Amino acid sequence: MPIGIFDSGIGGLTVFKEINKSFPLTNLYYLGDTARVPYGNKSPETVIRYSLECGNYLYGFGIDALVIACNTASSYALKTLRKEFDIPVIGVVEPGVELALKITKNKKIGVIGTQGTIKSQSYKKSLLEKADVEVFQKPCPLFVPLVEEGMINNHITKMVVKEYLDEIVKKDIDTLILGCTHYPLLKETIKELYPHLQIVDSSQAITEYLQSHHIPKEEEGIKRIFITDESPAFEKLKKLLIGNIPVEKLQLSEICTL
Amino acid sequence: MPIGIFDSGIGGLTVFKEINKSFPLTNLYYLGDTARVPYGNKSPETVIRYSLECGNYLYGFGIDALVIACNTASSYALKTLRKEFDIPVIGVVEPGVELALKITKNKKIGVIGTQGTIKSQSYKKSLLEKADVEVFQKPCPLFVPLVEEGMINNHITKMVVKEYLDEIVKKDIDTLILGCTHYPLLKETIKELYPHLQIVDSSQAITEYLQSHHIPKEEEGIKRIFITDESPAFEKLKKLLIGNIPVEKLQLSEICTL
Repeated sequence: MPIGIFDSGIGGLTVFKEINKSFPLTNLYYLGDTARVPYGNKSPETVIRYSLECGNYLYGFGIDALVIACNTASSYALKTLRKEFDIPVIGVVEPGVELALKITKNKKIGVIGTQGTIKSQSYKKSLLEKADVEVFQKPCPLFVPLVEEGMINNHITKMVVKEYLDEIVKKDIDTLILGCTHYPLLKETIKELYPHLQIVDSSQAITEYLQSHHIPKEEEGIKRIFITDESPAFEKLKKLLIGNIPVEKLQLSEICTL
Repeated sequence: MPIGIFDSGIGGLTVFKEINKSFPLTNLYYLGDTARVPYGNKSPETVIRYSLECGNYLYGFGIDALVIACNTASSYALKTLRKEFDIPVIGVVEPGVELALKITKNKKIGVIGTQGTIKSQSYKKSLLEKADVEVFQKPCPLFVPLVEEGMINNHITKMVVKEYLDEIVKKDIDTLILGCTHYPLLKETIKELYPHLQIVDSSQAITEYLQSHHIPKEEEGIKRIFITDESPAFEKLKKLLIGNIPVEKLQLSEICTL
């Protein structure tokens, strides 16, 4: 049962990494659309078109499940992709929401993400549909560039984290959903500043979700990682994210079909 | 003599703004490729292809000069565009280099820009070809996201400016080239922290360059601004950059011809 995973760029490799850890025997195909990254500042129609193109490419490998490891794409394109493909399509929103609802005690949940994810209200809507909770949202557009600069735990990053999070932490949240696949790399910094918070990391949430729906076959899994463009940020984070798995570069025209 | 101006996004509007101020009677056509922004993290081939597409689109308006108001595109695509089009093509690099060489006294020049611009060495090479100077470069990838967050002059921005610039200012530079069209919006903050520095802003440099090569016609100029996608950052900076000029949205497919 091969799994396809795509993201606007390399952030989704945090999801790839977690899935790979839990499903070492499963064939995994990852596509990072680095030629058009980021999706977080694009319009919904554009994000949907790009997501369909990524999905189509991975579908060609005969995958049995498609993971949208990008919160912006999950927010805007999940419904369209579920209609388009006859396999389970898993976004990052639902697993994160389910995990957050399982662990919150005071029912006050914070959600952080890109402008696009927060504006789409996808987490908030899904949380409120499923339970009687209070939700406090905050877009954190500087987190991705900080991570891509390799500023994982320095004094500027801490100050930016405080600048963004103090406001929602003051609302007495006990659980914080990291609504962007880059953010798990800032988890330690966030934990250090707010040790009482329970942090929901979508890569773990998706993996738990897959574990309850998916049984890996008893053979060694193939792992392939594609990107549509070289990315200096990727060079910085590659080792941390994927170890020694080789990366294959595609021409954008190979996926740009719509 | 209409002028076409393009950028990967909205940063080039600092150039549009300056040209508009000096050439109120000239027809100006601006294209911001916001559907594929930023170019700074893309590979040279990709940047060249996107730049050709932007140039082609503007060329269709019968422009008499094409300004590449994007440092990454100027660094990688200027030569190709000069071969492709039979009109003057002006990048941001040459005018900035000429102005810097005119004003430096101690012949120590700093250059800041995106990863792509600095990696291309375009400013450094051009400065060293033209004069016997020392050049100190520093990529500042967080500046664009800070500007797009509207963090033009707050405590975090100041700290990031110091983090990036202290290193090259210590080398005793007297002139600093802002090698990215977003950076003019941080000029006041940089001046405040380093009042002794002479700052070369590419939008002013290009305008001076055009003034010495271009005579506007005696009629009221048409100003048209196109973007390939809506951009939340643009909403924040629109007023500051273009006042009340309307913005027209294109489908990416209208320019995506290569």
